[in-house]
Amino acid sequence: MGRPPVESTEFPAWVDLPVEWNHLDAFGHVNNTHYIRWFESARVAYLQRCGLIEWMAADPAGPILASIECHYRRPLHFPDTVRIGARVCELGRTRLVLYHIVYSLEEGQVVADGRSHVVLFDYSRQRPTRIDPQYRRQIESFEATAVPIEEAAN
Amino acid sequence: MGRPPVESTEFPAWVDLPVEWNHLDAFGHVNNTHYIRWFESARVAYLQRCGLIEWMAADPAGPILASIECHYRRPLHFPDTVRIGARVCELGRTRLVLYHIVYSLEEGQVVADGRSHVVLFDYSRQRPTRIDPQYRRQIESFEATAVPIEEAAN
Amino acid sequence: MGRPPVESTEFPAWVDLPVEWNHLDAFGHVNNTHYIRWFESARVAYLQRCGLIEWMAADPAGPILASIECHYRRPLHFPDTVRIGARVCELGRTRLVLYHIVYSLEEGQVVADGRSHVVLFDYSRQRPTRIDPQYRRQIESFEATAVPIEEAAN
Amino acid sequence: MGRPPVESTEFPAWVDLPVEWNHLDAFGHVNNTHYIRWFESARVAYLQRCGLIEWMAADPAGPILASIECHYRRPLHFPDTVRIGARVCELGRTRLVLYHIVYSLEEGQVVADGRSHVVLFDYSRQRPTRIDPQYRRQIESFEATAVPIEEAAN
Repeated sequence: MGRPPVESTEFPAWVDLPVEWNHLDAFGHVNNTHYIRWFESARVAYLQRCGLIEWMAADPAGPILASIECHYRRPLHFPDTVRIGARVCELGRTRLVLYHIVYSLEEGQVVADGRSHVVLFDYSRQRPTRIDPQYRRQIESFEATAVPIEEAAN
Repeated sequence: MGRPPVESTEFPAWVDLPVEWNHLDAFGHVNNTHYIRWFESARVAYLQRCGLIEWMAADPAGPILASIECHYRRPLHFPDTVRIGARVCELGRTRLVLYHIVYSLEEGQVVADGRSHVVLFDYSRQRPTRIDPQYRRQIESFEATAVPIEEAAN
Repeated sequence: MGRPPVESTEFPAWVDLPVEWNHLDAFGHVNNTHYIRWFESARVAYLQRCGLIEWMAADPAGPILASIECHYRRPLHFPDTVRIGARVCELGRTRLVLYHIVYSLEEGQVVADGRSHVVLFDYSRQRPTRIDPQYRRQIESFEATAVPIEEAAN
Repeated sequence: MGRPPVESTEFPAWVDLPVEWNHLDAFGHVNNTHYIRWFESARVAYLQRCGLIEWMAADPAGPILASIECHYRRPLHFPDTVRIGARVCELGRTRLVLYHIVYSLEEGQVVADGRSHVVLFDYSRQRPTRIDPQYRRQIESFEATAVPIEEAAN
C-alpha cells in the first residue's frame, strides 16, 4: 500500500467536526480509529447532499462498505476542528470508491487521507447489483460542484 | 485496492474480544470502525507477547501508525466473539507491516482482514529510524511460533 | 449524589471484558465513558442469562434506559480485565433498577459502581407499561442465583 | 435517584456537537454512552473558557471525575446537532459539581441532563486538596456570564 501523495483537495461534500478531548489516546494524539469514524460521517454527508440518502435506506438494495484505507500524515492535537471531505474517485458498475481527506483547520494542513470502497448490494438476492443510471447522473452532477477544501463553508 | 484473498490464517499473536451490543449500528451490524480498534488491540497484543512493549514506550523512538486498510468480508452480529490475529508480513529497514484477520468464533469464518503499516519514528529528530537488529531477531523468532487461528487458545 | 458505599458484591449476571489500549485517555487512565458502555454490556448479559432478551426485542413494549449513575472509585490501567456485574436492586411496577460493579481482576478490587434505571415502555402508546408477572418471576428466580463477583466463572 | 426536573437552562459554557450517523445503535437512537462523552466535552469547554484549563494540566493537583449521572428524557435521532451546557451548581472545599443539559437544536428541547462530581486531587499526596481561592473567584465570575441555552451562540 505505502503512502501515496494527496490526490485531491477539492470536494463536493464535507463535514466539520471538533476534535474532542477524549479522542486523545495515552500519547496525547487523536487515536487512529476516529479518522475512520470521520470518513463515515463524510460518506453520510455525501449521500445526504447528493440527494442519495434514500438510496442508503432503500430496500432491497443498499450500499455496503467493502474496504477502507487511511493514511495518517500528521498527528492531531486538542483543541482543533477537522474538515473531512468526500468525493467519488471511481464509479464502477456495482461499486464506487470515495476519496477522503481530513484537513486540520487549526494547522491549515491535510492530516490524513484515504478511500472507502462501497458496493451496491441487493440484500434479497445477496449479491452486488448495478448502480442505477439515475444515481450515476446525480453523482456526476454533484461532483461538478467540488470546491477547494480550505474555502468550503458550512 | 480491491479485495485481495485472505493471505494467511496462522498467527503468533491474537486477542479474543466479545462483540458488544453497542457495537451494532442502525443496520444491526457491527459498525466498521470497531474492526480498526480490534486491529489496534491485536497490534498491542503482538508487541506485548513478542516482548516489544517497552519498544512502544521507548524514548526517543517509538512505533507510529502510518497507514491502515481493512477489507470487510461478512457482516458481524451480536452475540459473537472475535479472535483478531496479528503477524508481521513485511519487515523493512524503518517500518514493518502487520497483517490482521478478524475471525468469528460463532461462525467459524474470517469476517475481515487488513494491514497496519507501522514506522519506527525518532521523535527527537522527527524522522523514521532504523529498527534495531535485536528487535528484528525478536520479531523473527516470534513469527516462527504462529499457529492456525482456529486452534489458537488463550 | 455523593459517593455511597459499595452496596453488593454478589451478582447473578456478569461479563468479563479486557481493558483495551485505546480505552486510555491522555492521562493514561481508562476514560470514564467506557464504564457506561460496560454497564450496558452487563445489562444485556443480564437480560440474556435471565431469559429476557426477547423482552428487549419485543414489540410494542421494550425496556428503555431512563437514568444512569456511575461512581468512579479507582483509576484503571492497561492491561487489565474487568468483570462487570448486574443485579436488580429495585423492581417497581413499570421500572426496574440495576446495580452494577466494575471489578478489576488485576487488582482484585471494585473500581467503580453505579445504577441503571430501566423503564418498560409501550412504544405504541408512548408511555410506561406494567412489567408482566411472568418477567417479574423470572427476575426473582434469577436473582436467587447470585454469586460473589470474585468467584464468578465464565 | 429518579428523574428530577430540569434544574437550569442558563449556562456560561457550552459546546455544539453534531449527532453522527454511527452514534445510532440498533434501535436507531443515539446510544446512551455518547451523552456521557458529551458531558465530558462540555466540562472541558467549561475549563477552557473559564481560564482553568491549565488547572487541569497542573501538577501535582488536578481535577478527577468522582461520579456522573445522566437522565435520558427524549430519544435523539440523526441528523441533529446537540448543544451541551455546563455550569457549576455546587462549589465545595475540595470538590465541585457541574450540571449539564443536552439540548437538541433540531427539536428545540432538552433531551438529557445530569451532573458531574469533580474532586481536586493532589496526586503527590494521593488525596483531595482544597480548591484555591483564585480558582473559586474565577468560577464565580464565569458563572455570572450564563445565558439561556437556546440563545447561546458560538
